[in-house]
Amino acid sequence: MSKSSTVTVREKPVEQVASASVGGLTIHGETFVVQTEQRIELVDLTKTVMEFVRKFNMREGLVTLWSMHTTCALFINEFQSALIDDLRSLIEKIVPERDGYRHDDPRVSDCERGNAHSHLRAALLGRTITVGVNNGELTLGRFQSIIFAELDGPRRREIAVQVIGE
Amino acid sequence: MSKSSTVTVREKPVEQVASASVGGLTIHGETFVVQTEQRIELVDLTKTVMEFVRKFNMREGLVTLWSMHTTCALFINEFQSALIDDLRSLIEKIVPERDGYRHDDPRVSDCERGNAHSHLRAALLGRTITVGVNNGELTLGRFQSIIFAELDGPRRREIAVQVIGE
Amino acid sequence: MSKSSTVTVREKPVEQVASASVGGLTIHGETFVVQTEQRIELVDLTKTVMEFVRKFNMREGLVTLWSMHTTCALFINEFQSALIDDLRSLIEKIVPERDGYRHDDPRVSDCERGNAHSHLRAALLGRTITVGVNNGELTLGRFQSIIFAELDGPRRREIAVQVIGE
Repeated sequence: MSKSSTVTVREKPVEQVASASVGGLTIHGETFVVQTEQRIELVDLTKTVMEFVRKFNMREGLVTLWSMHTTCALFINEFQSALIDDLRSLIEKIVPERDGYRHDDPRVSDCERGNAHSHLRAALLGRTITVGVNNGELTLGRFQSIIFAELDGPRRREIAVQVIGE
Repeated sequence: MSKSSTVTVREKPVEQVASASVGGLTIHGETFVVQTEQRIELVDLTKTVMEFVRKFNMREGLVTLWSMHTTCALFINEFQSALIDDLRSLIEKIVPERDGYRHDDPRVSDCERGNAHSHLRAALLGRTITVGVNNGELTLGRFQSIIFAELDGPRRREIAVQVIGE
Repeated sequence: MSKSSTVTVREKPVEQVASASVGGLTIHGETFVVQTEQRIELVDLTKTVMEFVRKFNMREGLVTLWSMHTTCALFINEFQSALIDDLRSLIEKIVPERDGYRHDDPRVSDCERGNAHSHLRAALLGRTITVGVNNGELTLGRFQSIIFAELDGPRRREIAVQVIGE
C-alpha cells in the first residue's frame, strides 16, 4: 500500500487570467491569492468577488468560485464575529485535531504536516460556491457573505473564480 | 469587536425575473417564494424546478438553485417521510439547539433570534444545487428529489433559480 | 403517513450522450457507469473527467459532475489511502450504521435495504462537483482529486458529466 497521494498533473499550468468570448457570451476565469496568517482563519471574500463581477459589466450569468487546495473551504453564511467563533468550535468538535488519524501516522502516510483534521473539516464544509449574477451584481441575500475558511494556515492560497454570462 | 454582521448590499435589488439571450443561448433567472409553517420543515421542490425548466423549452443546459438566506438549506436526496425524520434527528444531534453559542449571547452578538444552531446546520447541509438539463428535463435519478430545508421557520424564503442552455 | 418515497419521473429517460452547439459555445453531457465492489468504496475519478474534457478540445469553460443516486457522494480532496481510511472512520462516527433510524423500520418505511446511514452520509458529503476548465484542462490543484464515494455498495452507479464552454 502506497503512503503517497495520487497527484493531479496538468500538461500546462493554470493560467492566471483566461478569457473566451463566444457570440456575445463571455467566459472569464482568474485566480487570486489569499495569504492567511492564522492556523484557522475565516475571511470574507464577498467584496472581492463582487468587484470581479462588476469589472466585466456582466448583466446575467453565473459565478463559480473554487479553491485549488484540499485543506481549506469556501461556503456562504453570515459573517459575524460571534457566529464565526461558533462555526470554528463546531468543526473542532465534530473533527477533533487529534483522533488517531492514519494520515498523520508516518508508518502509513508520507504527509509530514499532521493535518488529517484539516482535510476532513474541508470535506465537510465544501470547496465550491456557485452564485448567480442578476442585473450586474451577485444574487446574494443581505446577510449572505462568501466565506473562505483557512483550516491549515498560515498559507498562501489560490482561489479560482469564473464568470459565464452576458 | 463588533456585535454585528457584515452586510452584503447590492446597488439595485435583485430583479424577480431576468433574461438574456445570446446567439441561441438562453440565460434566465427567477426568484420564487417558499412560505414555511414550521420551525424545521423539509419541502420537496422537484416539481417546481421541473416546471421551471419545461417552461423554457430548454433542451441541454444547467439549472442552478440557491437560497438567499443563511438559516435554510438546499440539497438532493430521497424524499420519504421516515428518512426526513432521520435527517432531522441527525442534524439535531450533530448541532444541538443550545450549546453555549456566542451568536446567541447578547454580550457579543446583536442577533435576537437565538438561531446559531440554524446557521451551523445550514452550513453543513449546503445552499446551492446544480443539476443538468438533458432532453428538456432535469437529469435526476428516480429517487432524487430537490429538498429545501427550513431550519429557522416559520419564514418567507426566497429561492433563486437560473437556467443556462439551449 | 406514506411509507414510500416521492419519485421523480422524467417523461423520457436520460440520454446517454447529448450535445448542443450554440454559436461557438458547446454544451455536452454524458453519463458513465462506476461499478463498485465494496459496501463502502472510494474511487478516484480525476483521470476519467480529465479525459472527458480533453476529448472536446474545450479551452475555457465549466465541468459539472453529479451522481444520479441518493446513497453515494462526489467531492474533491486528496486521494491518499491513509486519508481515505480517516474519512471513512469519520463518517462512520458521525453517522453510525445503526441508530434507531425510522427509514430502516418496516412499520414506517417501505425501504428494504436498511440504508438510512448511507443516505445521511451522502447528504453530508454532497453529490455535485463543479470545476473550471482553463487552457483545455481541469483547474485542479496538485493534490486535488475528484472522489466518488460509494456508501451503499456494491452497486452499478450512474454519474452524469457536463461541459459547457468554448
